[in-house]
Amino acid sequence: MSSKRKFTIGIDFGAEAAQAVLVDVNNGKVAAASVYKYPHGVIKDKLPESGVELDANWAVQHPNDYINALKRTVPKLMSESNIDPEQIIGIGTDFAGSTVIPTTADGTPLALLDEYKDDPHAWPKFYKHSAAQEKADRLTQIAADRFETFLDRYGGKISSEWFFPKVWELYDDSSHLYNAADRLIEASDWIVWQLTGVETRNLCAAGFKAFWSKSEGFPLETFFSAMDPDLQNVVDQKMKREISPLGQQAGELTETAAKWMKLNPGIPVATGLLDRHAAVPAASVAEPGNMALILGTNFTHMVLSNKEYRVPGMCGMVEDGIVPGLIAYEAGQSGSGDHFAWFMNNALPSSYHSEARKLKISIFDLMEKKAAALEPAESGLVALDWWNGNRSILVDSDLSGLILGYSLATKPEEIYRALLEATIFGTRKIFETFIASGVPINEIIVTGGDPARNNLLLNILANVTRMEIKVADCPYTSALGAAMYAAVAAGESRGGYATIQEASKKLSRLRSKSFIPNNNDKKTYNRLYSEYTLLHDYFGYGHNNAMKRLKNLRDGILEKKTSD
Amino acid sequence: MSSKRKFTIGIDFGAEAAQAVLVDVNNGKVAAASVYKYPHGVIKDKLPESGVELDANWAVQHPNDYINALKRTVPKLMSESNIDPEQIIGIGTDFAGSTVIPTTADGTPLALLDEYKDDPHAWPKFYKHSAAQEKADRLTQIAADRFETFLDRYGGKISSEWFFPKVWELYDDSSHLYNAADRLIEASDWIVWQLTGVETRNLCAAGFKAFWSKSEGFPLETFFSAMDPDLQNVVDQKMKREISPLGQQAGELTETAAKWMKLNPGIPVATGLLDRHAAVPAASVAEPGNMALILGTNFTHMVLSNKEYRVPGMCGMVEDGIVPGLIAYEAGQSGSGDHFAWFMNNALPSSYHSEARKLKISIFDLMEKKAAALEPAESGLVALDWWNGNRSILVDSDLSGLILGYSLATKPEEIYRALLEATIFGTRKIFETFIASGVPINEIIVTGGDPARNNLLLNILANVTRMEIKVADCPYTSALGAAMYAAVAAGESRGGYATIQEASKKLSRLRSKSFIPNNNDKKTYNRLYSEYTLLHDYFGYGHNNAMKRLKNLRDGILEKKTSD
Repeated sequence: MSSKRKFTIGIDFGAEAAQAVLVDVNNGKVAAASVYKYPHGVIKDKLPESGVELDANWAVQHPNDYINALKRTVPKLMSESNIDPEQIIGIGTDFAGSTVIPTTADGTPLALLDEYKDDPHAWPKFYKHSAAQEKADRLTQIAADRFETFLDRYGGKISSEWFFPKVWELYDDSSHLYNAADRLIEASDWIVWQLTGVETRNLCAAGFKAFWSKSEGFPLETFFSAMDPDLQNVVDQKMKREISPLGQQAGELTETAAKWMKLNPGIPVATGLLDRHAAVPAASVAEPGNMALILGTNFTHMVLSNKEYRVPGMCGMVEDGIVPGLIAYEAGQSGSGDHFAWFMNNALPSSYHSEARKLKISIFDLMEKKAAALEPAESGLVALDWWNGNRSILVDSDLSGLILGYSLATKPEEIYRALLEATIFGTRKIFETFIASGVPINEIIVTGGDPARNNLLLNILANVTRMEIKVADCPYTSALGAAMYAAVAAGESRGGYATIQEASKKLSRLRSKSFIPNNNDKKTYNRLYSEYTLLHDYFGYGHNNAMKRLKNLRDGILEKKTSD
Repeated sequence: MSSKRKFTIGIDFGAEAAQAVLVDVNNGKVAAASVYKYPHGVIKDKLPESGVELDANWAVQHPNDYINALKRTVPKLMSESNIDPEQIIGIGTDFAGSTVIPTTADGTPLALLDEYKDDPHAWPKFYKHSAAQEKADRLTQIAADRFETFLDRYGGKISSEWFFPKVWELYDDSSHLYNAADRLIEASDWIVWQLTGVETRNLCAAGFKAFWSKSEGFPLETFFSAMDPDLQNVVDQKMKREISPLGQQAGELTETAAKWMKLNPGIPVATGLLDRHAAVPAASVAEPGNMALILGTNFTHMVLSNKEYRVPGMCGMVEDGIVPGLIAYEAGQSGSGDHFAWFMNNALPSSYHSEARKLKISIFDLMEKKAAALEPAESGLVALDWWNGNRSILVDSDLSGLILGYSLATKPEEIYRALLEATIFGTRKIFETFIASGVPINEIIVTGGDPARNNLLLNILANVTRMEIKVADCPYTSALGAAMYAAVAAGESRGGYATIQEASKKLSRLRSKSFIPNNNDKKTYNRLYSEYTLLHDYFGYGHNNAMKRLKNLRDGILEKKTSD
């Protein structure tokens, strides 16, 4: 048996689907892949069955979708690859988060109990659930008033996407349900609990989404009681204070879970982690000085470093958060992919759609082609990419987008290119902030969704950052990353790896084509970037607070309209 | 016969057509109207017949189109209205200008002579001909270096659209043709010459387009010799130093011209004038403190005043320029109507076009409807309307457009409304500059093309300026104005009027519906206008010269591309 090849399974739980891969532990080749589209996806309007309506900004998921994903994908991996279950040496999972699930003591989601299923708060609140914004704002204020040291690690601002705003919302809006919940568990830990019967709390989600740090642990009880005296002991009552490092074995596959997946029980299951963080080692980023740039609806920038520096405007900074022994920094650009889509949907004349149809290419491809035919600065446009505010480095959701330089000759492809460029100027701003704060960046590796396949965008990225841009050669980097952590959890003795660095080195691959800056474009982009910086600082640092004033005015009008 | 009603004819020579009207001198009613579309229109590519190609930025017209317009329209007016030619007491014309025609001593355009017709410089250079931009810039420099007092009256900048840049271009690029031209005549005077056999030079075109003023006359010979020694005596050699006031009789209709139009010879013909200026009394603006706002591809603002003030950023300031005895100020917003068209053509998704088709309305009407449903400031957007630079009050063609406040929720109708608002903020800036300079404005009356029929735009105009906006009730105000000047040239003895004020009072009409500001919108627009002003001053007064730098960069790249 030992001569046979070894495999691990990685399962990535996203917004609308779960993606599973079977990975050859020797060379990283994906032997089989299977995707399961959730029947419920992200639920924003009505609860399933009961039809209870959800308020604005709600976003929940169905726990059964998660379990069904296990049942549907893994057996497919096995049948397609036709390998022996004995060859599976580990299972790893990653999850979008913070997704918070209130459960009974045995891990049963309250959403699945008749008693609670009509209460929206019983359901797993998906990370994009932003109804707790007011709680997030108050938490930021409490933390600032108390001079909490953790606040700096999160760019000075707590997001509604994180763990404790959702917990506080649950307590405040449905206290009987808060009391009924024996456990408040992160989805990335809940799924591991289902696989192993063991409740763990992974370092990645605790560090990036729940204020935990290796040196300081969770905030003090006095912090939680400042929210509400009843929440003082939330960690000890509803969570686990003990944190599981990444790449560790959380437990072994139970009989039940093995049956779901047609696997053998006893297989090591790795500690859970967050989806974008799992993508990092899969994108060959596991050493200090490397940045993984994950391009999706948002852009995420993960940087590894030996040392701890305070970098302004981060989304999080977590020791051991991705690779044990290294500090992981996360920065973000909010809505970057979204505003390209906004442009395509809202600002393209019909003749462009006809042209795309005639050429039998997508409108995205047509626009990339047209925009790529332009030279930098040929449009005379420069933009600020703040359609959804600015996360890093300004941490200001009240900022908005700007385009400057319109003339009667301005063409749609020129605007599109200006939006791409502005986004990458925002990336350079983050990049420079890391470097200026003491964190070196020697290499940038790109992975992610549609934007990661946009050659023009990657070209601009190379010329604006003046770095060679490498691209991960795997369409499912998160699932591949989960499989890598599984190989580490399995350990060398079973044919896996001792460290995630080693696994990353052996199992990740880059595309042969990288993007190299050219001297001419570099120079032009330096000039355009200086224009971006002037506008960035003028509007971003409050020299002219027009964006905030306009937003205030707008919010007032919309509120009045709704109340009328 | 004297009991019969009296009429005058007004003919407006535009870019693509001539519009003639027959006006009842008693009440201003248009008894008949006729339009003649020029077969040649504005010629930009090739000369007629010879096919000689024109360079970039050229724009010429065909003199025969002008004469044919007389032959086609006036007989139609007569046959349709079925009045006796005896009832016509005067003829008036207005012309787009400065349109410069080189002619022989008897007024024959060189373009009609075999010897010269293949030389583009022989043709009437339409006012939009902008190939003499370099000459205009050099003229501005010469005038500034010489501290010419006239420069202030033109906002400190000479336009390529005006008379002398075109003359200098003719001399420099085709000196034999310059020498062959006995006369260099403004089209608004040429047409009067054709009608009367008398060469005149009208005060309106001389004042607004050729540096002439009542107090100072033309610039000194030393100014012209600074262009070129050969041009020192251009006024005395090729033009007329004597200037004809408006509303004067230039001459009587000749036998030949009477035959063209099936009229009686001997009818008084009024001094010519420019088209937009003719529209002013026809829009009921003939008294001090009134502003005529002429909305077309450009916006033109004509204000009458008792006194002479230096108002920054004007297009011209001419004593007696529209109404004898009053100072006429002209301000302008360049490309205002054009950039609405730009938006419709370049930034609307196809779904909007489908919706318009389904509703069987034009896309302009659909957008007006959608944008009108919004409240001021609801979009969160504010724009700078500088798609074609800024004429008044910044006099800077290197400025460009800007939109601020984009979010992922921004809709096309919100952008459209922001463009309308920005344009009107630009109008308020001009309005305030007049007032701050000492020129009162008590009334605003709108006339013009499509934008003058945009109720939303007029509504915004009322609320932003905080003034009642009245609208001229005539679709052909320029032609009506020409007919008014004809009635003054005919004089009281023939049944006309003594002054243009009197003619304006009797013959112009306003629509019964005016646009009244409302308190709520006025307040909101004051807040938005303060945002516009901050941006206007920041980018317009050089605190951040991004627009100029980007334009320079762009021009360099385009130049290199062309030369490659």
